[in-house]
Amino acid sequence: MAVGSGELGTLHPVPGVTMSAVSAGIKKPGRLDCVLFSLAEGTNVAGVFTTNAFCAAPVTLCKNHLQQSSPRYFVINTGNANAGTGKQGMEDALKVCQAVAENGSVGVEEVLPFSTGVIGEPLPVEKIITVLPDATKQLQADAWQECAKGIMTTDTRPKAASVQLELEGKTVTITGIAKGAGMIKPNMATMLGYVFTDAAIASDTLQQYLDRAVNTSFNRITVDSDTSTNDCCMLAATGSSGVVVNESSSAFADALNSVFIALAQGLVRDAEGATKFVTVQVEQGASQEECLALAYTVAESPLVKTALYASDPNWGRILAAVGRAGLDHLEIDKVTIYLGDVCIVENGAVASSYTEEAGQAVMDQEEITIRLVLGRGASAETVWTCDFSHDYVTINAEYRT
Amino acid sequence: MAVGSGELGTLHPVPGVTMSAVSAGIKKPGRLDCVLFSLAEGTNVAGVFTTNAFCAAPVTLCKNHLQQSSPRYFVINTGNANAGTGKQGMEDALKVCQAVAENGSVGVEEVLPFSTGVIGEPLPVEKIITVLPDATKQLQADAWQECAKGIMTTDTRPKAASVQLELEGKTVTITGIAKGAGMIKPNMATMLGYVFTDAAIASDTLQQYLDRAVNTSFNRITVDSDTSTNDCCMLAATGSSGVVVNESSSAFADALNSVFIALAQGLVRDAEGATKFVTVQVEQGASQEECLALAYTVAESPLVKTALYASDPNWGRILAAVGRAGLDHLEIDKVTIYLGDVCIVENGAVASSYTEEAGQAVMDQEEITIRLVLGRGASAETVWTCDFSHDYVTINAEYRT
Repeated sequence: MAVGSGELGTLHPVPGVTMSAVSAGIKKPGRLDCVLFSLAEGTNVAGVFTTNAFCAAPVTLCKNHLQQSSPRYFVINTGNANAGTGKQGMEDALKVCQAVAENGSVGVEEVLPFSTGVIGEPLPVEKIITVLPDATKQLQADAWQECAKGIMTTDTRPKAASVQLELEGKTVTITGIAKGAGMIKPNMATMLGYVFTDAAIASDTLQQYLDRAVNTSFNRITVDSDTSTNDCCMLAATGSSGVVVNESSSAFADALNSVFIALAQGLVRDAEGATKFVTVQVEQGASQEECLALAYTVAESPLVKTALYASDPNWGRILAAVGRAGLDHLEIDKVTIYLGDVCIVENGAVASSYTEEAGQAVMDQEEITIRLVLGRGASAETVWTCDFSHDYVTINAEYRT
Repeated sequence: MAVGSGELGTLHPVPGVTMSAVSAGIKKPGRLDCVLFSLAEGTNVAGVFTTNAFCAAPVTLCKNHLQQSSPRYFVINTGNANAGTGKQGMEDALKVCQAVAENGSVGVEEVLPFSTGVIGEPLPVEKIITVLPDATKQLQADAWQECAKGIMTTDTRPKAASVQLELEGKTVTITGIAKGAGMIKPNMATMLGYVFTDAAIASDTLQQYLDRAVNTSFNRITVDSDTSTNDCCMLAATGSSGVVVNESSSAFADALNSVFIALAQGLVRDAEGATKFVTVQVEQGASQEECLALAYTVAESPLVKTALYASDPNWGRILAAVGRAGLDHLEIDKVTIYLGDVCIVENGAVASSYTEEAGQAVMDQEEITIRLVLGRGASAETVWTCDFSHDYVTINAEYRT
């Protein structure tokens, strides 16, 4: 199951970036499960990583390498997270980097490793190393679809987004891929997002653009409130377009954010078991903090999510979730709640204009907006989530079988 | 589904308390859905109530009446929560109290109203008032089972607990009932608990005993993290035993706590869709606050809960939940995690002694303890929860149909 068509549209190559996806047979024979990205010399790379204290070995190594060098390769495997694997995990991740470095004739610190999949099993290093020569040979400018497929776990479809914009009379391209369908409440970034541009952007500036883009995209989605051990999101700027972007380009920022939001929403639309795409919008809050806390309380309420799954306009559960979100001195008489365009709660009770038919008409849709207007300030926040279905339970009860 | 036998054992009458359960046909004809408790004159009553900002009309009225009087009656209906009902809800709750007061020849402020069930539908006042004369006539000393059934919603079985202890050479009795299977993360108390004793206890002291008992029982359970709009827990002391209990009786406190813990655990064992009863124990934490935050993060993780449902020793999900709980400067090398008696994580990775068979043997049990030893302090906390099954989704997707 997934919400919406999932069509990817045109995915523009990014000059300075080549890529390949191959099958290492990590979990299932023949499945694309190993992805390689090659970056032109002089590419700047920024990254954000999981805040989970038990962060995986490749995440730790990735952060180390990023501090030491300008990376030339990303190597990504699915089927095994190399998390909870201790010292052995670090050695295994390093071995994969060494193999990539040898094949590509670069230093080991110029390779960034990424893993996703089951936690706590040893990384099948040999399987990965065996296919790296092939992966290196097959590097090409336009294999976005294959690479987006090659990083999937329980995803049912690849996620990618691409835009082009004109700057200084030249075309600048931004293209990215992402994956993730469960254990999704990113907190800095989500496992795994890779976005590339041919703009020339200094490292510090690139990190700023990435932080801002992540904070309005991957850091505003939740499937199941579980922040992964392996979350990483990378932004690489090759400079091949010859266009220099400084820290104040709103045109570039808007284009970049649109790619990030498309990828983040793509994860939610294809979340484990999802049948609804839900936007939770909080307005007129006293602070951004309380808006976010409230949005997540509603977005993560199992009772709200099962009602969404049933297309049941059981607004009492939304009201109950708002009431338990812990907002200081919330005056319920000032709270107005909308389901789509339909006002469901005003003055602390069901709206006088509300009818079950109107609520049902909204709930029957595949994309639903819950709008919470607090009437006590000027802050606003938006979070995207999905419903909670039988399939979520099935997928996660059977994940390792 | 429910965990364990659910046998109630002997439920001792409490001198000074009579009760009855009748059918008002609120949702299903013939079902016990209206319960009346009558308290001897001079009974002291303490209460704790939901912290949900959208607290229901009967909760508000109950708090008002409790401040004004020594209550003589509790009137409880299931099938309708009278929450999110605004002014009409307050008027309806008052009408029910008036009818009880007339039947019992007491003042209206001596009646405490309680409701549980669907949020946002008008209370069927006439149906309730019609059966109150019968309920009054049928008051008797020993109808605990019927009353425990009469307050159930999605519960599959009644919950009650009873103990007797000797104080000053006399027998003191404590008996209570509770209900709740979903929308359960009480925060002050859970909908609905009623505990009675024939000890003589001053009002302030009674409130202290209640607060302490609730904080180690109802305030330590979570089914789905959703705090209800209608949570209430009442403790009534009739004094009929002639035994005066002051604020420092550890014998009474222990007996009282045992009743509260039995009731709270009873809710979890019969939680919506539950197939496992799970104890999450945090030890050696830096503060009670962080122990609780961690215990709830693990207890409410959808991924941990679905793994428990599948009896899958997927310890990586426990490790991931510990890592995302937001503990300041958590050193993962000091964390040890046990599944039952089996050490699963030590030194930041899977324990060297761990085998999948050993983990599986624990997971196959119906009652499971997850023990998290942080190695950074002397604080400890325990929370009880259940797994997350297909039936939880089914029950909550079909609740209003």
